[in-house]
Amino acid sequence: MNKPVVGILGGGQLGRMLAASASLLNISVVILDVGDNGPAKQIVSASGPRLSHIHGSFSDPEKIRELASKVDVLTIEIEHVDATVLESVKVPVHPSPSTIKIIQDKFLQKQHLLSHDLPVSEFLQVDSTVQSLHDAAAKLGLPLMLKSRTLAYDGRGNFVVRDLSQSKDAIAGLGNRPLYAEKWVPFTKEIAVMVVRTTSGDVLSYPVVETIHKENICHLVFAPLRSRDPTLASRAQNVAEKAVQCLQGAGVFGVEMFLLENGEIFVNEIAPRPHNSGHYTIEACETSQYENHLRAILDLPLGSTALKVPSAAMLNIIGTTSDFDELTAVQNAALAIPGASIHLYGKSENRKGRKMGHITLVADSDAQLRERLRPLLEALPSGNSAAEISKYAPIQPTLGSGFSNTNPLVGVITGSDSDLPVMLPAARMLDRFKVPYELTIVSAHRTPNRLVEYAKSASTRGLRIIIAGAGGAAHLPGMVAAMTPLPVIGVPVKGSSLDGVDSLHSIVQMPRGIPVATVAINNGTNAGLLAVRMLGVSMPHLLDAMDGYLKSLEAEVLQKVDNLEHIGWEKYEVKR
Amino acid sequence: MNKPVVGILGGGQLGRMLAASASLLNISVVILDVGDNGPAKQIVSASGPRLSHIHGSFSDPEKIRELASKVDVLTIEIEHVDATVLESVKVPVHPSPSTIKIIQDKFLQKQHLLSHDLPVSEFLQVDSTVQSLHDAAAKLGLPLMLKSRTLAYDGRGNFVVRDLSQSKDAIAGLGNRPLYAEKWVPFTKEIAVMVVRTTSGDVLSYPVVETIHKENICHLVFAPLRSRDPTLASRAQNVAEKAVQCLQGAGVFGVEMFLLENGEIFVNEIAPRPHNSGHYTIEACETSQYENHLRAILDLPLGSTALKVPSAAMLNIIGTTSDFDELTAVQNAALAIPGASIHLYGKSENRKGRKMGHITLVADSDAQLRERLRPLLEALPSGNSAAEISKYAPIQPTLGSGFSNTNPLVGVITGSDSDLPVMLPAARMLDRFKVPYELTIVSAHRTPNRLVEYAKSASTRGLRIIIAGAGGAAHLPGMVAAMTPLPVIGVPVKGSSLDGVDSLHSIVQMPRGIPVATVAINNGTNAGLLAVRMLGVSMPHLLDAMDGYLKSLEAEVLQKVDNLEHIGWEKYEVKR
Repeated sequence: MNKPVVGILGGGQLGRMLAASASLLNISVVILDVGDNGPAKQIVSASGPRLSHIHGSFSDPEKIRELASKVDVLTIEIEHVDATVLESVKVPVHPSPSTIKIIQDKFLQKQHLLSHDLPVSEFLQVDSTVQSLHDAAAKLGLPLMLKSRTLAYDGRGNFVVRDLSQSKDAIAGLGNRPLYAEKWVPFTKEIAVMVVRTTSGDVLSYPVVETIHKENICHLVFAPLRSRDPTLASRAQNVAEKAVQCLQGAGVFGVEMFLLENGEIFVNEIAPRPHNSGHYTIEACETSQYENHLRAILDLPLGSTALKVPSAAMLNIIGTTSDFDELTAVQNAALAIPGASIHLYGKSENRKGRKMGHITLVADSDAQLRERLRPLLEALPSGNSAAEISKYAPIQPTLGSGFSNTNPLVGVITGSDSDLPVMLPAARMLDRFKVPYELTIVSAHRTPNRLVEYAKSASTRGLRIIIAGAGGAAHLPGMVAAMTPLPVIGVPVKGSSLDGVDSLHSIVQMPRGIPVATVAINNGTNAGLLAVRMLGVSMPHLLDAMDGYLKSLEAEVLQKVDNLEHIGWEKYEVKR
Repeated sequence: MNKPVVGILGGGQLGRMLAASASLLNISVVILDVGDNGPAKQIVSASGPRLSHIHGSFSDPEKIRELASKVDVLTIEIEHVDATVLESVKVPVHPSPSTIKIIQDKFLQKQHLLSHDLPVSEFLQVDSTVQSLHDAAAKLGLPLMLKSRTLAYDGRGNFVVRDLSQSKDAIAGLGNRPLYAEKWVPFTKEIAVMVVRTTSGDVLSYPVVETIHKENICHLVFAPLRSRDPTLASRAQNVAEKAVQCLQGAGVFGVEMFLLENGEIFVNEIAPRPHNSGHYTIEACETSQYENHLRAILDLPLGSTALKVPSAAMLNIIGTTSDFDELTAVQNAALAIPGASIHLYGKSENRKGRKMGHITLVADSDAQLRERLRPLLEALPSGNSAAEISKYAPIQPTLGSGFSNTNPLVGVITGSDSDLPVMLPAARMLDRFKVPYELTIVSAHRTPNRLVEYAKSASTRGLRIIIAGAGGAAHLPGMVAAMTPLPVIGVPVKGSSLDGVDSLHSIVQMPRGIPVATVAINNGTNAGLLAVRMLGVSMPHLLDAMDGYLKSLEAEVLQKVDNLEHIGWEKYEVKR
């Protein structure tokens, strides 16, 4: 690896995080942006004339040429640069200027995606007249999204037209820039995939994430995406990869998509650079989006995009005033939360809507993640309503209350409510070890459709273990095991005849290929304990807790040994 | 959180990594070291006179006072500073100058530890005469370690005296500095713990790691430490915490220890600052040692020290010549390895014995970690003999060869070799899913001591699941389960009478408290599959592979459906 020099157009937080990655690889960076101490320049000490930063605008042709003259490759942290100048420079530019031009104009971008058969919402060009808007509404219906074709980001440049009486306001609000209209997308979720593209056009995806916007600015990101639809993640990655394949140049691309009620996916827009929805990769993936961007543009092998933690989230810290003190509460909250990593961007001014930093959270389960998220949401300067907090970080039912966790790791299911007395001890054991679970009824014989849906969606919903109890011709555990890759624990329930041996044999004697982890007849307690042991495979604290539990069993018996010696067995047996 | 300014004495790689952590928290740092572009100064752009770095020696009283005048708190990245001057400055210094003085003089350090009842090897002061060495050898035996009391690190300042004829050479070799002698410690392993100490003296440990030195310089670190001794990790953490509690001031401390054959632990030495054995924490722990050092000295709450990955290693990149190109091979190897993070320190000169960078590896198992490590060891400029490589990154037996992996996740045990025909299918299934395992004989009734040792050490050795097969009065699975917190899968083996029902009931009908995950009689295949599903709890790629396996079973049957229709059932049954 030679010591290449990378020029970055833009020195904000994305440039800063790119520069931090570059320093780990001894890659020099030179930054073009106004000011001499912006977020990126702060962490790259200019050394000598060749490697000194350039102060000026990333859309100033002179400055761009000056930057190009000093570096081996150019890249961007923002797409609102002068792409025409970039076409004329002598060094490689990634992504390619043609890509930047397509991305800069959202109407062109949509046309480009459509021409490559990518799913996008219906759209059409409009001019800045009320009549044009009326025509658009006649074709696309209301509400419709009126969008500025250029210089639009973080919701700036969007106007939701709900009623044609808003037409004038909409056009004025968007400042008479070139416009286009998009059919309203009644999405159920916004999702995103970061895709890395090599100089030879190969692509590699990061996990699919759920993104939550607030006032059109990215608020929260959850990784990985959970869904009842087992096909969703691979479908979304396929769409994102196809979208990036139809563009030119190397680097990471953020592909933002809408998920519709019927499972359809629409591409919303593409960022040709590191993206807010990929910040989580710094702590949560084997290689961050920043390092992979550098690897891609320098023609180095790409790094693994795999998650290295079970669950992660990213929370933006966004200013609401010019007062820096408003950021203190959320920073302090983050310092007190295990798995929270604070990233402040070193911006010299705070202001409304400005991204001042972010916090990445990692956790060993979604439940732990949401629990860790809650105090952060509560402390954010931008505020969150109680309803919002409950939505993203719900308060869980108290232990022993008899309600399911919203982010369960274990699914406890029973074929009949008559089996509850056997299965409740499993739930209580999970409560004791603070393992999040859900408990519900799934009958193999009476609700076969529910059985199929439950089993097939279990893994992508985030469940890691299923405990199934059944009696008699006990089919539930085995049928679930046949439709999920998760481990299934079977609890034979004793019926009115055959002493439970029928259930035991129905559950344990599975054919080669599909195992059920069977526990003793009616022993829901052991099913719960076995689930805890299985989770201990990835959660060492549960192994410690299980060690403690085994010691408590030992102590209990030793106490009895003492009593027996102390009061004699005749009295002991009477008292027992 | 106000924006505090931290002054760091020393601007090498430790200062650089401290500075990188500081920038994430908007903490300003000012660095005192010679030169204007050392590793730390490169990534902290000096902004304005107050925050401009100081060029000079960290042992120059004037420069130290100048640094102190600009900052809110002082800390060190190297202990060879002028501690007396630090005692006189007006800002807090962490760790305290008294601690730095104790650490600087290894003889004082040992005396201090001994006076606080910490286990250290026998030692005594010697002067620079041959007679004094002879006297020491009479008391401590040979070989003995002759050590320079001051300015010793990375093995500089140590001399192993194996024979008294070496006395003159030893004294000359250590340059007539003040000396002391230490009894030779025949350690089996070197281990280390990073401990964070708050300003109020509370301590928090990172996981225990194994450190491997080569030519007295840290070569490799493995986290967490694996051991047959279930008490080792907590004993080592206790010793390390006690050692740090007897010192003053806040920050992280690296406690290096020797592990003896008999399980005893000796403290070797303490570094009062971030340490090479804690580099792995950047990628592998919830909070890095660098961030926790800053939190500690700034009186902020400490961050979680928990591992967030199952297995991690750190490999130093050490120069052997002045040629930078010698580093290329290992950097390129690292770029091709998933989970490898490269940290280059930006040093302007390469030379023999110089730490030029390090690589952190993370993996979902020790086996995967060692596999990822191998190409790195092979590519190191400092070279590794085949024997060294085999020791730290052994080539594993080929699939189906019938030998155990050296870093197994699953232990397959059988009470008798006569049960092998039932248990081998479990092993073969683990081979198929590329899960590392060991297979051995543990008999509950004939080797009860081995049973106890195997079960009790399983978890700390790194096993995550045990598959135990037994027939008749099948006690093995249940007895193992009683002595480990790991999940135990029981395979009932069919004996000569009772059709295996005796084994099944002996295994499945465990009392409340101790579950065994029981599979069908003689169904080793399902035991292997169940283990794979359990590992899938933390290794999503195994869930994908299990999905594929289920699809293959489906395809196999659908093929039969086709055949049956095609050739008719009469012919089909004849051909079957």
